[in-house]
Amino acid sequence: MRVRYPETDRMGVAYHGHYLTWFELGRTELMRGLGCTYADLEENDGVLFPVVALGARYRVPARYDELLRVDTKLVSVGASRVRFEYRLTRCDDETLLATGFTEHATVGRDGAAVRMPRNLRSTLLDRPSRR
Amino acid sequence: MRVRYPETDRMGVAYHGHYLTWFELGRTELMRGLGCTYADLEENDGVLFPVVALGARYRVPARYDELLRVDTKLVSVGASRVRFEYRLTRCDDETLLATGFTEHATVGRDGAAVRMPRNLRSTLLDRPSRR
Amino acid sequence: MRVRYPETDRMGVAYHGHYLTWFELGRTELMRGLGCTYADLEENDGVLFPVVALGARYRVPARYDELLRVDTKLVSVGASRVRFEYRLTRCDDETLLATGFTEHATVGRDGAAVRMPRNLRSTLLDRPSRR
Amino acid sequence: MRVRYPETDRMGVAYHGHYLTWFELGRTELMRGLGCTYADLEENDGVLFPVVALGARYRVPARYDELLRVDTKLVSVGASRVRFEYRLTRCDDETLLATGFTEHATVGRDGAAVRMPRNLRSTLLDRPSRR
Repeated sequence: MRVRYPETDRMGVAYHGHYLTWFELGRTELMRGLGCTYADLEENDGVLFPVVALGARYRVPARYDELLRVDTKLVSVGASRVRFEYRLTRCDDETLLATGFTEHATVGRDGAAVRMPRNLRSTLLDRPSRR
Repeated sequence: MRVRYPETDRMGVAYHGHYLTWFELGRTELMRGLGCTYADLEENDGVLFPVVALGARYRVPARYDELLRVDTKLVSVGASRVRFEYRLTRCDDETLLATGFTEHATVGRDGAAVRMPRNLRSTLLDRPSRR
Repeated sequence: MRVRYPETDRMGVAYHGHYLTWFELGRTELMRGLGCTYADLEENDGVLFPVVALGARYRVPARYDELLRVDTKLVSVGASRVRFEYRLTRCDDETLLATGFTEHATVGRDGAAVRMPRNLRSTLLDRPSRR
Repeated sequence: MRVRYPETDRMGVAYHGHYLTWFELGRTELMRGLGCTYADLEENDGVLFPVVALGARYRVPARYDELLRVDTKLVSVGASRVRFEYRLTRCDDETLLATGFTEHATVGRDGAAVRMPRNLRSTLLDRPSRR
């Protein structure tokens, strides 16, 4: 993905908040690769994955129009929690720009905690692989 | 309202897309002033106001941390349409920064067009006033 | 491009302001295809293209995770103005979601109007083509 | 500050990334209260405060149009580092929604690390107070 113009700020680099959107794209594509898209989970299973905790470390700023890659790893799957870790890299020279993690709860449409659907859990446990 | 850091871009000024958010704040407060908050409309009446058309002209760029004011005017109320007009001004010297308009349809939660609720329509028609 | 989660709002569809970002991606790629990236223009030529006017019409809402395509057309090139037009389409069924335009001035780093660099103008005039 | 419509996502609550913007507003106002606005620091002293690390914990979701308050604390000031901590609260019932921290380096306009200006450091050290 490329850094978009509105993702820059007046420092001339990408605003730190947008890295969370890139992390989101990483886990979205990881899940799509596992055969369970996040859109389906919400619409068919009624399961949402709100973020309950996150952290990020910024090493080198991302700049406008640079091509970036996010490598996402599913590091743990609990009864109602999952944790993803991310590494954001600039494509042209493989510079590591940032690392981070997000932890998610599984909740229903009403916001109440639910156990992760069994088939989702086994899918995630089978292949906690990098993208 | 103040221009926020992430609303700037690498030109050093506010990104043009954020002006639409400021227009939104203008009509939100106009409606709150009329006694019908947009949040209530959605939650209690099940009526949504999606934007169907908009336009904007940009005269002078807004800069980080400047205080801005948006003056909003309800210019027409149809059976299932409303149109708002906006003037965005920098507070410290009353410079006009931008003007714009939005047109909204009234739709239900399923996205189908609905007539505007009678009480909303009369409220809007009674006081198409500036803020 | 896909509709990103943070681009949705609580109506469940993409917020109207994000369409402007997609239009931006359209003209960015159009210019890249012409051999003059917008990043180079800013960094090497010191020419910025701020938006001075825009308009959009929304027909069908874009939804989370849908694949979209923006077709961009350069419709006029003046001494210090350019105008682009956009058509946003949902890829899977070719539904037209929205249309719009943006007009840009050419200004220098200090914000003062400048004439468009001759080589840029001839590049743009030679190939006002669709993408 | 109120939760803005484009800050919501299709879960119906505020997107987790926007909490970082609210944290930013907290430290901006803390610094304004200390008499050194962030805008001045950048423009007059040429000192930028990029985020180098951050973390957040989300307890209760923020919803559209709710009034929120962020309490910001300056917890440490080093030679070229500062750390802020945040508590985000819903105004109407004082519910704690989220907590977080950001760590910032001091860099010059070229992105190279610089020591914090002496007068800024003493201002920050004198009053590491809550807002």
